[in-house]
Amino acid sequence: MSSGLSHSDITTMFLALGTLLGSARVLGELARRFNQPAVLGEIIAGILLGPTVLGRVVPDIPATLFAKTGAVATFMQGFSTVAVALFLLVAGLEVDLGRVWRQGRSAITVSLSGIVVPFAIGILCGWFAPTAMGREPGADPLIFALFFATALAISALPVIAKTLMDLGLFRTDLGMIVIASAIFEDLVGWIIFATILSMMGSGAHSLPVGYTVLLTLSFAAAMLTVARRFLNWVLPWIQAFLSWPGGVLGFVATIALFCAAFTEWIGVHAIFGTFMAGVALGDSPHLRERTRATLEQFVAFIFAPIFFASIGTRVDFVANFDAMLVVTVLAVACIGKIVGCGLGARWSGNSRREAAAIGIAMNARGAMEIILGLLALQHGVIRERMFVALVVMALVTSIMSGPLIQKVLRRKRSRHLAEHLARVEVLDSANPTEAIRTLSRSLATHAGLSPALVEGAVLERERMMPTGLEGGVAVPHAPIPGLAAPFIAVGIAKHGVDFGAVDGQPSRLLFLVLTPAEDPEAQLEILADIAKTFGQQGISEKALEIRSLTEFLALTRADAGMTREAV
Amino acid sequence: MSSGLSHSDITTMFLALGTLLGSARVLGELARRFNQPAVLGEIIAGILLGPTVLGRVVPDIPATLFAKTGAVATFMQGFSTVAVALFLLVAGLEVDLGRVWRQGRSAITVSLSGIVVPFAIGILCGWFAPTAMGREPGADPLIFALFFATALAISALPVIAKTLMDLGLFRTDLGMIVIASAIFEDLVGWIIFATILSMMGSGAHSLPVGYTVLLTLSFAAAMLTVARRFLNWVLPWIQAFLSWPGGVLGFVATIALFCAAFTEWIGVHAIFGTFMAGVALGDSPHLRERTRATLEQFVAFIFAPIFFASIGTRVDFVANFDAMLVVTVLAVACIGKIVGCGLGARWSGNSRREAAAIGIAMNARGAMEIILGLLALQHGVIRERMFVALVVMALVTSIMSGPLIQKVLRRKRSRHLAEHLARVEVLDSANPTEAIRTLSRSLATHAGLSPALVEGAVLERERMMPTGLEGGVAVPHAPIPGLAAPFIAVGIAKHGVDFGAVDGQPSRLLFLVLTPAEDPEAQLEILADIAKTFGQQGISEKALEIRSLTEFLALTRADAGMTREAV
Repeated sequence: MSSGLSHSDITTMFLALGTLLGSARVLGELARRFNQPAVLGEIIAGILLGPTVLGRVVPDIPATLFAKTGAVATFMQGFSTVAVALFLLVAGLEVDLGRVWRQGRSAITVSLSGIVVPFAIGILCGWFAPTAMGREPGADPLIFALFFATALAISALPVIAKTLMDLGLFRTDLGMIVIASAIFEDLVGWIIFATILSMMGSGAHSLPVGYTVLLTLSFAAAMLTVARRFLNWVLPWIQAFLSWPGGVLGFVATIALFCAAFTEWIGVHAIFGTFMAGVALGDSPHLRERTRATLEQFVAFIFAPIFFASIGTRVDFVANFDAMLVVTVLAVACIGKIVGCGLGARWSGNSRREAAAIGIAMNARGAMEIILGLLALQHGVIRERMFVALVVMALVTSIMSGPLIQKVLRRKRSRHLAEHLARVEVLDSANPTEAIRTLSRSLATHAGLSPALVEGAVLERERMMPTGLEGGVAVPHAPIPGLAAPFIAVGIAKHGVDFGAVDGQPSRLLFLVLTPAEDPEAQLEILADIAKTFGQQGISEKALEIRSLTEFLALTRADAGMTREAV
Repeated sequence: MSSGLSHSDITTMFLALGTLLGSARVLGELARRFNQPAVLGEIIAGILLGPTVLGRVVPDIPATLFAKTGAVATFMQGFSTVAVALFLLVAGLEVDLGRVWRQGRSAITVSLSGIVVPFAIGILCGWFAPTAMGREPGADPLIFALFFATALAISALPVIAKTLMDLGLFRTDLGMIVIASAIFEDLVGWIIFATILSMMGSGAHSLPVGYTVLLTLSFAAAMLTVARRFLNWVLPWIQAFLSWPGGVLGFVATIALFCAAFTEWIGVHAIFGTFMAGVALGDSPHLRERTRATLEQFVAFIFAPIFFASIGTRVDFVANFDAMLVVTVLAVACIGKIVGCGLGARWSGNSRREAAAIGIAMNARGAMEIILGLLALQHGVIRERMFVALVVMALVTSIMSGPLIQKVLRRKRSRHLAEHLARVEVLDSANPTEAIRTLSRSLATHAGLSPALVEGAVLERERMMPTGLEGGVAVPHAPIPGLAAPFIAVGIAKHGVDFGAVDGQPSRLLFLVLTPAEDPEAQLEILADIAKTFGQQGISEKALEIRSLTEFLALTRADAGMTREAV
C-alpha cells in the first residue's frame, strides 16, 4: 500500500541486514576466540564494511548498502532503534536488584565513589579544558561538560559480567561487589543521561525540561516499586491462563515497547524505557529462565550484532581519528574510574590488591558507552571525532580489563577440555597399554613430541594409580616438562578398556591429557572439566557414536550450552 | 545521522508496535481459548484497530498510528516484510522432506489432485466468469486467472498441523498423509506464485520473465539438493567451533536474509527465499530442537502477531465487504480443495469417511492465503474487495476445518487436566474418606451438584479398587450421569493420605475427577493426562508448595511447555 520501499529497496534492505549480521557474527566469534568481547568484533565488522575500509576501495558498495538518506536508511534507522531498545531490555533483565541490596555498604560505596569521582573529573575537565576534551566550537558548554562527565561515569554490566565469568570470579565476594556496583552505576548513569537528553530538548514536540526530569524520575521510581510489584503479581496469571511461552514473551515485549514509547515521548530516549522495563520484569522470580533465554539469545545474536555493526558503518574511523583526543579521553576515563572505584573499595575494607582489581573491572565500558556516544552524536552534542574517541575508549577499556585483573590477582583463566582437544581416535583394542600407546602416538605427532616419551610418562603415572572414573570415563594423563600448552586426545573404545574404575565398569571414553609440568593447575582444571562434562551417562552414550573432532566438539559445546541455560 | 525518523516518529513507531503486538496477542489468546487458530484473533485485532472499527469512531488514532505514507509507514513496511520473511523461514523449518517421501504414493496423489483440481477450477472460473470472481476492470485476464487458481490451490501447513494435533490425529497414518500432502502443496504453490509474480514484473529493475522463471526453479532445485547437503555438512562445524547457540542462530538468520535478498532480486518475493532456506536448513538432523524453538518462539509470538495485526489495519473490512464475492470465493475454494484432495485420497485407497476428513483438513488456508492475497494487493493484481474476500475465505476455512473433521470422523478433542481444573484445596487430614469428603464438597458446590451424591459415588468407586498411583499421586474419581463437562479438584495433602498405591507411598497430590457418565473416554483421557504430567517426582514436589488455582495452572502449563519442546 505505502510505496515507501520499492522492489529494489527491499533487495537492498535484506542484503544490508544479511551482510551486517553475517560479518558481525563472524568477527564477533573471532573476537571471542581471542577472549575479547563479541561487541569488539561486531564494531570492527561495521568499520570494515563502511566508509573507513570498504568505502576507500569501492565507495559505491557502502554508499548503496548503508545509504544515509532514502527509504532504506529510514528503515535501518527504525530497525536499529528497535534493536538497541531490545538490547537494553535484555540488559535490564540481567539486573538483579536483590544483589545490589545484599552487597549493601560495599556496593554502594564502590559505585557512588565510582560515579562521583569520574563525574567530577569529567565536569572539571569538560568545563575548564573543553578544547583538549574535544568540545566543538558552538556546543553548549554545560551540556558538553555534563555529557562528558556521564560518559566517564557510565559502566557496562554485560562486559563486566562476562569478564568476571571468564576469570571464574563471578560468584566470589569480589565479583558480587563489582556486579552490584555496576548495576547501581548503570541505573544512576542512565537516569543522569536521560536528564541531559531532556535538557537538550529535541525539536518542536518536546516538553519543558523540568517537566521531563520530573517525569523521568517518577517513571524510574514507579518502575522500581509499583510496576515491579504489579508485574510480579501478574506474571503467574499470564503463565497460567495464556499459552506458553507465547503469553509471557508477547507480554514482556509489549510492556517494553510501551515503556519505550513513553520515555521517548517524555523526551528521553526509548532505550531508557526498555531498560527500566527489563529491570522491573527481570526482578520477578516468576519470569522463567526459559523465557529470558529465548529473548536474550534472539536479541544478543541477531538484533545486537546488526546494531553494533551498523555503528561501524556510520563514521569514517580513519578520517575522524584524532590521536591526541583519543589518548586524552582514554587516560581521563581510566584514571577517573579506576581511582574512583578503587578508593571506594579500599574504604569499604578491601585489600589493596582487591581494590585495584575492582577498579579495573569497573573500568570496562563496552556497549553502553557506544550507545551513549551514538545518541550524543545523533543529538548533535558531539561530532564524529569525539564519537570515534569514545568508541576506541570503550573498546580499549573492555579489552584490557580481563588481562589486567589476571595480572593484579595473579589469576589465570580456567582451562577447558574443548579448547585443548586436538585428536579423536576410535580404539579397537581392549588392552589399556595399547590404548594409551595409540593415543600417545596420535597426540605426540600432533604436538611435535617423542611418542615414546609421552607413552612412558603416561604409563608410569597410570601404574601409580589407575585413572578410571565412574560412568565409563578414564583420564590417563601426564605432566610434560616444557610443553607450551595442554594437549588432549579422546579415544572412543567401543568394547571398553579396564582402567580400574571404582564402579568396576570398563572405560569407553578415554581422555589422554598432557599438560605443562610447570602449570599443575592446568591439569587439575582440565580433569575437573572432564569429570563435570561427562559425569552424566547420557553424554557418554552419545559420545560413543562420534567419529570426528568436529562432531565431538559439537556435542560438548551444545550440551554445555544446554546445561548453562537450565541453571 | 539520517534524519528520516524524527523524535515524534520514533514515539509513534514504538506505540504502533506495542499496540499491534499487545492487542494481537490478547485476541490471539482469545481465539485459542475458543479452539481457533491464533491468526484469526491477530487479524481481528488489526481490524478493530484500523479503519474498519476504531477509524469509524476516532479516525485520527489509526490515521496517525498506522499512517499509509511518511517515515513511520516506510519503517512499518520494512519491518512487516522482515517479519513475514522470518515467519516463512520458520514455516520452512517445519517442513520435513523425509515425511513427504515416506508417505510416497498417497501423499503425491492427494497433493497433486489437491492442486490440479482447484487450480483447474480457478483457471476456468477466473477466465470464463471473471466478473463473478472479482476481476477488476483493466486487470490482465491471464495473470488474474493464474492468481485466482493459485489462491484456490494453496494450503497452510501451520494451521493444518495445529488442527491435527488438537484432534490427536497428527501421528496417525491419516495425519501423516495430510501433512505430507500439505508440505508438497506448499512447495508447488509457492513456486507457481513466484512464477506469477515474475510474470507481472515489478518496476524498472526487473529481469525478463523467462529468466526469472528459470532462476526461480534453479534456486528451488539448488536449495533442495546442493544447498541442503552443504548446510547439513556445515552445521556440525558451526556448532563445534562457534559459540552456542549464537553461532547457529546467526548463521540460520544470515542464510535466510541472503536468500531473501536473492529471490527479491530475481523478481519473486523475499518470502520465497526464506521459505526455501527454512526447508533446506530444517531438513538437517544437525539443527538442534533448541535453536529451532528459539527462532520459532520469537517469530511466532513477536514478529508474526505484529505482521498479521498490521494486515487488519490496511483495509476497511466493512466498506470493502462484497457479500456476493465473499460467498462465491468461499464456495469455489471449498469445492475445489475438498473435492480435489478427497478424490486423490479415494484413489490412493482411503475409505470414504477418511477421504472426506483428508479433504476437509487440506481445505484450511490460514496465514499463507492471507500473505498471498497481500502480495497480490501490493502488486495491483487484485483490489481491496477481493483481498477482503480472500481473508474471509482463509479464516472461515481454517475455523470450520477442526469441527468438521470431528464430525466426519466422529472424533472428539482429547480432554486435558488443565482445561477442567476448577478448585485447589489444601488438606490437613491424613484420612482418605475425609480427604474425599472435603474435595467432593468443594467441587460439588462449584459444579452445582449434591455433595452427598458426589461423595457417595467417589467412595463407592474407591472401595472397588484404590486409586493411588506411583509417585504420591491419587486420582479418586466417579462418572456422574447428566454432567455437562468434566470437573476436577486438586487436594494438596502435606502429610500424605493412604490411597493404597502400589509403591506403598502415601498420596500427597489428590485429583478428584468427575466426568459425564455418558462420556467414558473423557475419564480415561483425563486420568492418562494426570499420570503423564505428574509421573515425574519433580513436579509433584513443586506442586506441593502451591496454594492457588492460578499457581497450579502456571506450574502445569509451563512444565507441559518444557516437555513438549524437549521432544
